[in-house]
Amino acid sequence: MKQKLKIIKIGGNVINDNSALNSFLSDFSKIEGLKILVHGGGKKATEMSKALGLKSAMIGGRRITDKANLEIVTMVYAGLLNKKIIAQLQQNNCNAIGLSGADANTILAHKRVVKGVDYGFAGDIDGVNDKMIRLFLDGDLIPVFCAITHDKKGQLLNTNADTIVAEVAKGLSSAYEVELIYCFEKSGVLLHVDNEDSVIETLNTVSYQNLKQEGIIADGMLPKLDNCFNALKNGVSKVIIGKPKVIINMDIKHTAIVL
Amino acid sequence: MKQKLKIIKIGGNVINDNSALNSFLSDFSKIEGLKILVHGGGKKATEMSKALGLKSAMIGGRRITDKANLEIVTMVYAGLLNKKIIAQLQQNNCNAIGLSGADANTILAHKRVVKGVDYGFAGDIDGVNDKMIRLFLDGDLIPVFCAITHDKKGQLLNTNADTIVAEVAKGLSSAYEVELIYCFEKSGVLLHVDNEDSVIETLNTVSYQNLKQEGIIADGMLPKLDNCFNALKNGVSKVIIGKPKVIINMDIKHTAIVL
Repeated sequence: MKQKLKIIKIGGNVINDNSALNSFLSDFSKIEGLKILVHGGGKKATEMSKALGLKSAMIGGRRITDKANLEIVTMVYAGLLNKKIIAQLQQNNCNAIGLSGADANTILAHKRVVKGVDYGFAGDIDGVNDKMIRLFLDGDLIPVFCAITHDKKGQLLNTNADTIVAEVAKGLSSAYEVELIYCFEKSGVLLHVDNEDSVIETLNTVSYQNLKQEGIIADGMLPKLDNCFNALKNGVSKVIIGKPKVIINMDIKHTAIVL
Repeated sequence: MKQKLKIIKIGGNVINDNSALNSFLSDFSKIEGLKILVHGGGKKATEMSKALGLKSAMIGGRRITDKANLEIVTMVYAGLLNKKIIAQLQQNNCNAIGLSGADANTILAHKRVVKGVDYGFAGDIDGVNDKMIRLFLDGDLIPVFCAITHDKKGQLLNTNADTIVAEVAKGLSSAYEVELIYCFEKSGVLLHVDNEDSVIETLNTVSYQNLKQEGIIADGMLPKLDNCFNALKNGVSKVIIGKPKVIINMDIKHTAIVL
């Protein structure tokens, strides 16, 4: 019988709002058993870029990370946000340890190469060092990953947090019964984007294809959901999408992703 | 028989110079056996403060850390510099893990309170979590500390790197035979500040007192040396001060601190 492990992702909507972040971290601290947190970036990196007079370009919803912007995201994600989260979790007696993928070589990636498009220092993940992450979990530590990885050739890489959390979940699924929870600003996948009451309670591969073809699920939700199905196909036991409160109260509305 | 552990500190002179940093990290990676690195900040935090239009005040050689400056040092020390060092060590097959004192609750501190002077978010160390650091060492990891600690009440604190390295050395001296090496821009403690040939080969408590009274050792060297003697009095086996190269070649000139 495998031990249960909850792996939770929070994004900008929680990160950007101090009171939402405090409330989430308080809830996260109360979760019993093994757990891992992965956090996205939020608006602070963009603010910092602007304050320093840098320009930030986007292609297909992804930030183009030039050298100056890589410095900014490394500072903001791995420094400011990660350590702020760690200090708050420590206050809650939650023995957290902040990690980039370079730390203990936990997440290996390579610089994204797509014909014709230079994504700069954006990383696509090659693998997750499950043995090392297990060392932390066995030592009663709670790993908290920011969205920075490395290529083991000395290069840090800006990496999508939704992908990181799915890869970490997949990588640990042979050792643990992994439950993956994506927290975001909505109550789940919605049939009508502006109606929080239209939460799709269960989304499977067939209904996903149909809703995609009808254009009901589109844009930013597609890579997120692709990550979810990919995780389920690779050993993750359960995938949930919903508001942050879902991590301690599964009775509130959410979407369960199933194969 | 205790295992040997080398604990090494580098400061701004190495951090600020890419080629010096690469060379040091290459040497550091070659050290066999257990090792820990502690790094200072360098000029990047000051540059960042200036670029963002912040003012940085100093009292008695210590930066006054207001809220905005704490954000900067957290970003630069724990984010940019620490992760840059980790990525380079990983390239050298040195399985490093970057830590602030908040991570895994490794270094506990409190906000400095000195009558009449508000040092802002500056931390004085209460204790080092030797058990947790031993978990990393036992897991073949190389801890790399930046100069940020926390108070376990949710507050990050800017903390002197010379003091951090001495406290980490003291904290681990009951479990290991600890050798503490301070790397800086000079070949050791100098009799004549501008003459690199005037290195004092051995400095003990008596000669230290004499040289202090004569005004030969003064200013920034005093807290550094106080940390050295304090470490020796608290179980650290050996303390060395010299240029970065001393970590792989003890034949070059350096100062050995003895009781």
